[in-house]
Amino acid sequence: MSARSVCIVGSGNWGSAIAKIVGNNVKERREHFKECVPMYMYEEEFNGRKLTEIVNTEHENIKYLPGIKLPENVVAIPNLLEASKDADILIFVLPHQFVKKICDELQGKIKTSAIAVSLIKGFAISEEGIQLISRLISNILSIPCGVLSGANLAGEVASEQFCETTIGSKDKEIGELLKLLFETPYFHCSVVEDTDTVELCGALKNVVAIGAGIVDGMGYGDNTKAAVQRLGLMEMIKFAEVFFEGSKTSTFFQSCGIADLVATCHGGRNRLLGENVVKSKKSLKELEKEILKGQSFQGPLVAKEIYGMLEEKDMLNRFPLFVAIHNICERKMDPKEFVNCLRNHPEHL
Amino acid sequence: MSARSVCIVGSGNWGSAIAKIVGNNVKERREHFKECVPMYMYEEEFNGRKLTEIVNTEHENIKYLPGIKLPENVVAIPNLLEASKDADILIFVLPHQFVKKICDELQGKIKTSAIAVSLIKGFAISEEGIQLISRLISNILSIPCGVLSGANLAGEVASEQFCETTIGSKDKEIGELLKLLFETPYFHCSVVEDTDTVELCGALKNVVAIGAGIVDGMGYGDNTKAAVQRLGLMEMIKFAEVFFEGSKTSTFFQSCGIADLVATCHGGRNRLLGENVVKSKKSLKELEKEILKGQSFQGPLVAKEIYGMLEEKDMLNRFPLFVAIHNICERKMDPKEFVNCLRNHPEHL
Repeated sequence: MSARSVCIVGSGNWGSAIAKIVGNNVKERREHFKECVPMYMYEEEFNGRKLTEIVNTEHENIKYLPGIKLPENVVAIPNLLEASKDADILIFVLPHQFVKKICDELQGKIKTSAIAVSLIKGFAISEEGIQLISRLISNILSIPCGVLSGANLAGEVASEQFCETTIGSKDKEIGELLKLLFETPYFHCSVVEDTDTVELCGALKNVVAIGAGIVDGMGYGDNTKAAVQRLGLMEMIKFAEVFFEGSKTSTFFQSCGIADLVATCHGGRNRLLGENVVKSKKSLKELEKEILKGQSFQGPLVAKEIYGMLEEKDMLNRFPLFVAIHNICERKMDPKEFVNCLRNHPEHL
Repeated sequence: MSARSVCIVGSGNWGSAIAKIVGNNVKERREHFKECVPMYMYEEEFNGRKLTEIVNTEHENIKYLPGIKLPENVVAIPNLLEASKDADILIFVLPHQFVKKICDELQGKIKTSAIAVSLIKGFAISEEGIQLISRLISNILSIPCGVLSGANLAGEVASEQFCETTIGSKDKEIGELLKLLFETPYFHCSVVEDTDTVELCGALKNVVAIGAGIVDGMGYGDNTKAAVQRLGLMEMIKFAEVFFEGSKTSTFFQSCGIADLVATCHGGRNRLLGENVVKSKKSLKELEKEILKGQSFQGPLVAKEIYGMLEEKDMLNRFPLFVAIHNICERKMDPKEFVNCLRNHPEHL
């Protein structure tokens, strides 16, 4: 096959870090990829200038990833269809609440031979309940969609600190192609076929991270936090077993599993949310305004979604950690009660 | 069976924290255990007074666990044979280098019906190579020996912060008896039969924790540290597979596995050692003098022992993280090279 055209759909913190990697990789691997990488960027003003213009002249996303130079072959484009029309590989990396709308716009407008990869954390909510983002993309666009997820805090990836990630692809060849696109000496990609679990980990770990933040906020030490992480992992595995047939426990040993869980429980913003839920009496909305300047925390959304799924299956008792985190985020439970919910965990029976 | 007599052999930081738990539990469970708990304490002077005398009058181990009151039914005894002569359950909780000598002294002097449980981290080294401490105890004393290991930093356990632990016992009944002895609302015990792996985790995690400290010292963030923990865990599992037939991967999901690994990589003193190995040019001996006032770090001892085992099996290539940590501790490798050793880890093939 001739060299493939790659398009990045999204340009936030993580999208920009990935743009740096992909932009550099395609330059070095020209037999596989075309050099120019269009990046769809939702147009906004920053300090009185258009953000696309800043990216294309200064080669830096000064709003979402300041201080990191992007390769010049990454070109920010504010028009979605223009950015994506020639793409053989579409990298989806935007907040999960925008995916459906974006895919609806792309439907019928992209190459039918294209493939997609989702770097998005979270679930989509449809009328039938929760849906994996990669399936949503795949269903709307009628193309295969792999996933990439791992212990990858964007700022650290952008500053080239060594880390690992996991690529999930049911098709092995696509998996290897994606590895070629993303792997660098500081960003190691392992490929597995168990796509569902890779994606699931990326959503569920944010719930556990709120729990880690809660025990941090309560002043507990490393033992209690380790118990929260372990019990959280057990609930993640159980949840995958119950709702995603074919999920493999071995996938949890990949970077997308334990590594991402541990990194997020120590460094992510959902952990920070958990800490603040204890230390202040503000509502989630107020905390989002304060900490994320209005963006949404992933964890509480996912916690709410899975609470509904568990309730429907009459399985709330089996997931006391997930349930307590949801109730605490909704201010229906005092964070002080969190640890009590863990004392008689079904894992202990 | 009538109420059992319990003896604690050892009285350091962890021994004293366990004495608090056991002393309180036996008072509440008198149908199972006798109230008086002798604790063997190596006699030393502290501020001009005998430490046993301080413990028995002030009910506090002011040298090794200051600020924590011990139950009055825990009685410090400086004579090993006197402390242990009536014991039905012997709890071994002392630095691993003293175990053999202590067991040799106890041989033939304890009840033949007694059972033991080891809370000791590390390996014993005999002429035939490495030996698990629980086997050493069991072999010398001709009694069964279980183990207890988990994410249990002693100070946090002593201050009653919720945590989990894992009891390993090949005999189920003994496992349940030990659970009855150790479990409290803040110290949750799970029992598994895979004793070897429980014990192995407790030794190997200290090696990985040095690696976590090295990346901390180098200024890397949570992604790299998560990769070190994940690759470390993979090497732990592989090591168990190679050297301990019957080791189960599921045991690594217990508190003794991932939870203890994560807690130790964030809070333990072997992590601190790793950080200092990067930040100073001092030898291990000097760092021990400085940080531990002459006590030994567990991690480097274990790293050295497993290095020898791997070398003999011609398997050094398979364990680049363990090997690099050993070489860095011995000052044969620059810590700056550590991350490079992980880039082409066999887990990535």
